[in-house]
Amino acid sequence: MEYQFSNKNILTFQHKLILFRNSHYFNLITTALIVIYSILLGLQTYIEKNNDIFIIFSILDYGITLYFIFEISLKIYAEKDKKEYFTDYWNLFDFFIVGVSLIPLGLFDSVIVARLLRIFRALRLVTINGNIKKIIMALEGAIPSILNIVILMFIIFYIYAILGVQLFSTLNSGLWHNVSISLLTLFRVFTFEDWTDIMYEAMEVYPYAWIYFVSFIIINAFVIFNLFIAVIIDEMSKLNNNHIQEFLDQEDKELKLILREIREIKDEIKDIKLKENNV
Amino acid sequence: MEYQFSNKNILTFQHKLILFRNSHYFNLITTALIVIYSILLGLQTYIEKNNDIFIIFSILDYGITLYFIFEISLKIYAEKDKKEYFTDYWNLFDFFIVGVSLIPLGLFDSVIVARLLRIFRALRLVTINGNIKKIIMALEGAIPSILNIVILMFIIFYIYAILGVQLFSTLNSGLWHNVSISLLTLFRVFTFEDWTDIMYEAMEVYPYAWIYFVSFIIINAFVIFNLFIAVIIDEMSKLNNNHIQEFLDQEDKELKLILREIREIKDEIKDIKLKENNV
Amino acid sequence: MEYQFSNKNILTFQHKLILFRNSHYFNLITTALIVIYSILLGLQTYIEKNNDIFIIFSILDYGITLYFIFEISLKIYAEKDKKEYFTDYWNLFDFFIVGVSLIPLGLFDSVIVARLLRIFRALRLVTINGNIKKIIMALEGAIPSILNIVILMFIIFYIYAILGVQLFSTLNSGLWHNVSISLLTLFRVFTFEDWTDIMYEAMEVYPYAWIYFVSFIIINAFVIFNLFIAVIIDEMSKLNNNHIQEFLDQEDKELKLILREIREIKDEIKDIKLKENNV
Amino acid sequence: MEYQFSNKNILTFQHKLILFRNSHYFNLITTALIVIYSILLGLQTYIEKNNDIFIIFSILDYGITLYFIFEISLKIYAEKDKKEYFTDYWNLFDFFIVGVSLIPLGLFDSVIVARLLRIFRALRLVTINGNIKKIIMALEGAIPSILNIVILMFIIFYIYAILGVQLFSTLNSGLWHNVSISLLTLFRVFTFEDWTDIMYEAMEVYPYAWIYFVSFIIINAFVIFNLFIAVIIDEMSKLNNNHIQEFLDQEDKELKLILREIREIKDEIKDIKLKENNV
Repeated sequence: MEYQFSNKNILTFQHKLILFRNSHYFNLITTALIVIYSILLGLQTYIEKNNDIFIIFSILDYGITLYFIFEISLKIYAEKDKKEYFTDYWNLFDFFIVGVSLIPLGLFDSVIVARLLRIFRALRLVTINGNIKKIIMALEGAIPSILNIVILMFIIFYIYAILGVQLFSTLNSGLWHNVSISLLTLFRVFTFEDWTDIMYEAMEVYPYAWIYFVSFIIINAFVIFNLFIAVIIDEMSKLNNNHIQEFLDQEDKELKLILREIREIKDEIKDIKLKENNV
Repeated sequence: MEYQFSNKNILTFQHKLILFRNSHYFNLITTALIVIYSILLGLQTYIEKNNDIFIIFSILDYGITLYFIFEISLKIYAEKDKKEYFTDYWNLFDFFIVGVSLIPLGLFDSVIVARLLRIFRALRLVTINGNIKKIIMALEGAIPSILNIVILMFIIFYIYAILGVQLFSTLNSGLWHNVSISLLTLFRVFTFEDWTDIMYEAMEVYPYAWIYFVSFIIINAFVIFNLFIAVIIDEMSKLNNNHIQEFLDQEDKELKLILREIREIKDEIKDIKLKENNV
Repeated sequence: MEYQFSNKNILTFQHKLILFRNSHYFNLITTALIVIYSILLGLQTYIEKNNDIFIIFSILDYGITLYFIFEISLKIYAEKDKKEYFTDYWNLFDFFIVGVSLIPLGLFDSVIVARLLRIFRALRLVTINGNIKKIIMALEGAIPSILNIVILMFIIFYIYAILGVQLFSTLNSGLWHNVSISLLTLFRVFTFEDWTDIMYEAMEVYPYAWIYFVSFIIINAFVIFNLFIAVIIDEMSKLNNNHIQEFLDQEDKELKLILREIREIKDEIKDIKLKENNV
Repeated sequence: MEYQFSNKNILTFQHKLILFRNSHYFNLITTALIVIYSILLGLQTYIEKNNDIFIIFSILDYGITLYFIFEISLKIYAEKDKKEYFTDYWNLFDFFIVGVSLIPLGLFDSVIVARLLRIFRALRLVTINGNIKKIIMALEGAIPSILNIVILMFIIFYIYAILGVQLFSTLNSGLWHNVSISLLTLFRVFTFEDWTDIMYEAMEVYPYAWIYFVSFIIINAFVIFNLFIAVIIDEMSKLNNNHIQEFLDQEDKELKLILREIREIKDEIKDIKLKENNV
């Protein structure tokens, strides 16, 4: 990312901009602005909706929007190949968040949707912070395992949801009216949130309904447990492989050295033997 | 599983079928059909029970059943030794699910049981997907540890359940009426679901009832914790053993090479010595 | 534990008993009896208290007690040094459980205490099963870490309990009346059981009471997290040490072999040199 | 920390004090006093506020305060460089706790604040106990990971809190009145405490409100899962590095020995060759 200028004396405006982009201060200013913006978003919730201070906030909102446009333009401009900027998913995310907030509020059906989209700007705190990006990426390698578990859990939830509708759709609580409501009810059971209330209601009609609930909880607990172990073992395996590799390289170097020495000795001895034979 | 034909030109009908069975498309078609069937099962829950669309669903149901019979027949037919198909537990599971749905609805006491059995067909999504099978099998080696923990937990639950009946069977809530109800109540306490309500009721009669509940929770937490550590350490141990083995093999090869070279040198020297002595 | 008899032909009655004690069947009979006894304990809870079947159960109870006395006597008798039996904590536990059930019911203030003690006999299922004993012992090495965490958590609970009494003892719910009730309330908060009800009640008097509850939950979560990591790392460290040791031993053997060969070569060469000098 | 006296016979008063400070008994006395003090704090909660026994407690309180002042003075006095005492964070913590309890009760606006501060003296049980200090320090290396996760979770909570106010501030429960109340409500949802009550209330106005709650729970579960894995892998990596290092050192020594022997052989052979050439 660092640009090397052969002739630092003739810095054109473009070069100055690029240097500014790479500087630590630029990142700091952006972070500070997002933090301030986020705090303002929070403070706003304490104020009555029709307060005069809202005007100040609107002005600040415009200012931040302008800064974000400037910042992203600068970042795109600084890339040698403009397309490169869009190959990074984090940049795309940034671009989308800023882009969305440019759409005039009037275009949305409701003002609420527009406001919600503005809130997502605070998410830029995540994309601007290298450490947090690293944490999110840490489990990148574990995504296939996690995805498979999610699919498996969805199948379990889905089958139980259909079963739930078939068995309990006539109950008064209406928690098993159709598949989507059943899925939500099962998610509630999954979090142990007042799940016995739901079970006791079902047990009044089907005394064996407890099998449905207890089996659902135990199966899911086992799947989650499985996921946990799978990811830990997977990550440990990668870690060990790296260590083993590093270790083998170190060892290999020493053993190669010994082997070379031994072969030199062998050559010397052969040499001696040859001379002796000649003698 | 792959069949090798010595003469590909003379493909009989049977061979063509076998090739079809082994093709990627066959698996894809089966998966797609199960997914569609599962979605239909879900959609069905939004429809009033006596709707005309139910007829369409019945026809689709017959179609899927026919396809499943065809698919499993093909798989059995393609095995050299027909018995081989039934040695795989996943195949047996498939066979059972499809077989059960062939039983005419009229044979069951209630229509509900028959319908429930049809839902389990969606479970074929698990048996058809190699990745999910792998995840379920991942903890195969940990089953003995898990089983022992389950036995231990059952003993704990059972003793506490009998204690619960002895102590609290006279309480109004009826949560400790007999051992089976007590076990369900303890499972509820185990999931922390409104457990203090149960405890406070018991404490009105026995002020020290909290000992029963708190000890039950702490003992179970310790057992679960134990299970977790046991399985992680067990899996790690297997992983390490593999790494060590792989490492030892690599190392062994290099050391053996050095040893061979050294022994050659030794022979050469002995040779020289012998000649000198002769001189 | 296995006795070796020099002359197997002259088996006295004592020897026969010892052989019986060591046989697999003896263990199996004891296990079967405890399982049957435990099932009976469970069945008993379904029966009305003044039923005739209770008499049958009393007779069975006496039978089991006699068998247990016989079994433990045999085990003690079979030890060369009688004291050895009592050095194993599991034996002491067995002895205590059986011993307690010998005390006549009339000696207890209440019949309930006597009955409860009988239930604990089912715990012998744990002491008779080698696998479950192993699981319980698995975390033996982790006990110091766990104990320290338990002490730390008790200090945290205790300080929060005293704080709770100081701040909330005047609340209507009576959940903070004194230190022991406060500790129970905090345990409830710790299990997340309707903890917000308690918090909202406190916040009506002290609006900042949420700091008390949220800090308590977060501190405890951190301590539990700490325990988990500590025990995993500790166990892994032990595992790794074993592996490393085993690995080092294997490696050491090979390297020693190489070194010996090299030294032999060195001696040979010195020998040659000496001879040449003599020539 | 241990002082070495060149001439043990002429122990001045200061030296005797220092020896006392380093003795095991001094630590034991302090621990015992804090334990007694903590028990008294607990017992006090069982007593009516205007009881005569409170006078005894006040006297004991003065006594403990005096002892603490004496103990800390001694510890500071015993350091060669007085500033050294204040470089240890645990000492600073001790000093702060004791220092605060010296402030006269009258200076505080309310008696409650003063009393609370006295309770924190029980925390000295943590600072006086080496094992517990070690446990708290165990995760010291994991603090950066934990901190980043905490920041990430705060961002998530914050964005959801603002969203919550925007969407649900008009609901009757008042759980979404402003950002701080929303944060508390979200913490409640995070602990699964009656979260469906909150969701069902919101779903009456916005039927899709479940997306807000379910996504919040799943995102946080993923972040917590991530933290867990990250810390385990991090700690394991450190552990492995230590093991590898120790292993490499051991291996290195043996390989160096072999290399030295081989080089000696090489020299000998060169020597032989040289002589032969001379012959």
